[in-house]
Amino acid sequence: MSKYVISIAMMNRLPLYLDYLMMLESKGVETISATTLARDMGLGEVLVRKELSVISGNGKPRIGYKTSSLIKDFDTFLHVNKKTKAVIVGAGKLGRALLGYKKFNKFGVDVLAAFDNDIDKIDNKKIFSINKLPNFIKDNKVEIGIITVPVENAQDVYNLLVENNIKGVWNFAPISLKKVPGIIVKQQNLALSLAHLNIMLKNNV
Amino acid sequence: MSKYVISIAMMNRLPLYLDYLMMLESKGVETISATTLARDMGLGEVLVRKELSVISGNGKPRIGYKTSSLIKDFDTFLHVNKKTKAVIVGAGKLGRALLGYKKFNKFGVDVLAAFDNDIDKIDNKKIFSINKLPNFIKDNKVEIGIITVPVENAQDVYNLLVENNIKGVWNFAPISLKKVPGIIVKQQNLALSLAHLNIMLKNNV
Repeated sequence: MSKYVISIAMMNRLPLYLDYLMMLESKGVETISATTLARDMGLGEVLVRKELSVISGNGKPRIGYKTSSLIKDFDTFLHVNKKTKAVIVGAGKLGRALLGYKKFNKFGVDVLAAFDNDIDKIDNKKIFSINKLPNFIKDNKVEIGIITVPVENAQDVYNLLVENNIKGVWNFAPISLKKVPGIIVKQQNLALSLAHLNIMLKNNV
Repeated sequence: MSKYVISIAMMNRLPLYLDYLMMLESKGVETISATTLARDMGLGEVLVRKELSVISGNGKPRIGYKTSSLIKDFDTFLHVNKKTKAVIVGAGKLGRALLGYKKFNKFGVDVLAAFDNDIDKIDNKKIFSINKLPNFIKDNKVEIGIITVPVENAQDVYNLLVENNIKGVWNFAPISLKKVPGIIVKQQNLALSLAHLNIMLKNNV
C-alpha cells in the first residue's frame, strides 16, 4: 500500500467497495476491472482507478484485479491481521448487542469487553465494573472506546477514556462531545440515521 | 418549507446541524446567524445559507435565526409531528436494543414492534410472531421495516417487507440486498463503521 492521504470521502466508499467485492467473490467472479467496478457501483472510473491503486497497486491491463487478491489488499488496508483492541462502556441493550456482534473482528477490531457501573449487569466474564476499566485498557493495550451510555454520562465516559490513553472513540450517545485534540471521535447517531431514511422516503429523494 | 430537491450530501449534514442547534439551545443561545453556524461547523457560508433557507426560509439581516424556531423548522422537515410507523424484523440483541431506543420518536419515526420466528423471543406485547407481520403492517399503516436478522435471512425478510408494501428499509444485515425499484434502502453496516474509525486511527486521517 502506498503512503497516501486518504480522504474521508474515500473512507466512506470502502464499505461499498468491500460489499461489492464480497458479493463478486460469493458468486465466483475471479477477476474484476476498475472499469466494470466503476460502472456497477455508479462511480467515476478515474476515481475508482486511483482508489484501487492506493489499496492494491495497479490492475493488469485488460484483466484488472484478481477478486481474492483485491479483497486481501482491502483486508491489509483495514488492518485485519493486526487487530485493534476495543472496549465498550455502557452494558445496556445496545452495548450488549455490540459486545455480541461477531462481524467487528472481520474488519480489524477486537471488541474485548464491556464496562458498567450497574452491578446487575456485571458478570466478570465479558462485562466488568467500570472501576476495572483503567487497568484493563493498560493491560490489553486497548486503543478504541465505544460509548453506549446515556447522554448524561457520555462526556464523563469520554473524559475517562481519554485520561486512560484511548486513541479513538465511537460514540453512540447523541451528544456533541467536548473533544480533546488528537483523539478521533466517530459519532453514530442511530436516531438520525433512521430520520435520514424517513426524509428520503417522504421527499422521494 | 420550499419544494426543493434535497441532495444526499445535505441529508447527511442534517444531523450535524441539529446536534449543533440543540447544543446551542441547551446553552441558552437564543439566536444564531448562518455566518456563525457555518464558521463553527466548518462549512461554507454560501452552502449553509442555502440549506437553512430550504429548511426555514431566510434569516433576519444581522440577527439570523431564532434558535428555537430553527429547531422547530428542522422538526417539520424531519416530519416529527406526523410520525412514520416502523417495525423491526429480528428480535435478537440488536433488534431488541433498537426496540427500546427512545430517541427515534424524537426524529419522526415510531418504532411500534418487533417480529421474530423464535418462539422464545415472542412476548406478544412488543415482540410478535413473524406470521403476524403482514396484518400488523396493514392495520398500522407501517411504512418502514428495520432488518436485524442474520445475513442468511435478510433477503427473505426484505422480500416479505416489500410484498407487504413497505416503502423504506433500514438494513443492518451486512449484505447487498437485491433491491426492488421504488423501495428506499438504507444500509447500516456497524462493523464497517467501526472499521472506518480504526482506519482513521491507524492512518492518522
